[in-house]
Amino acid sequence: MKSGMSETNALFTSEVFGNRNFEALDKIYTADARILPPGSPMIAGRDAIKNFWVSMIESANATSAVLGSDEVYEAGEGAVEIGHATLTVQPSGQDAAQMQVKYVVFWQKEAGLWKWHVDIWNA
Amino acid sequence: MKSGMSETNALFTSEVFGNRNFEALDKIYTADARILPPGSPMIAGRDAIKNFWVSMIESANATSAVLGSDEVYEAGEGAVEIGHATLTVQPSGQDAAQMQVKYVVFWQKEAGLWKWHVDIWNA
Repeated sequence: MKSGMSETNALFTSEVFGNRNFEALDKIYTADARILPPGSPMIAGRDAIKNFWVSMIESANATSAVLGSDEVYEAGEGAVEIGHATLTVQPSGQDAAQMQVKYVVFWQKEAGLWKWHVDIWNA
Repeated sequence: MKSGMSETNALFTSEVFGNRNFEALDKIYTADARILPPGSPMIAGRDAIKNFWVSMIESANATSAVLGSDEVYEAGEGAVEIGHATLTVQPSGQDAAQMQVKYVVFWQKEAGLWKWHVDIWNA
């Protein structure tokens, strides 16, 4: 379980943030996932979630995301993870800044891959 | 499952916010629960969580919390809930204000009661 989860988290860092390969989100979120970003209503479904990350990463000019897993609870076929992340952003004409967030993810297995089914974070 | 969860959520509304009966938190959070409030580090353990709610409710003069459950996923012996809440606060000398939050709770059963084991929310 944990190695599958690490691989998914690594994809988010290297592909989504590192390479801006947003198709990699297919391997990170379940088709029917939900995200609950601060200051925004819940966003449901992987297509809408992709649009969120494209917009967030491009508008903030996010250049890296480093994820750290703090606690993992088994939950039937899935798992619940508590973690933290450091996002580096550099909006046009501004200095680079770091944002610290903490998150809770409800993981489920889809097509053999460990994916994020519910994803919420705050500052 | 859902009726047990509704009872717990009702306790939070009626006892913790309504009556400021903070001992009711024993029936709401597991002994080893974690909360992840916005703008604060994770808080671990029911005693520390009680201190958080005493301080938050008294300093903001919170007068009500209305919880609404949006989605519930079974997760082995537990469950994952997505919901929303409206908190009414009235700090000394100020007008009453409402705060809208959305939350994710990982529920577990402890001593026959459905309780919050991981609780995170944002605006």
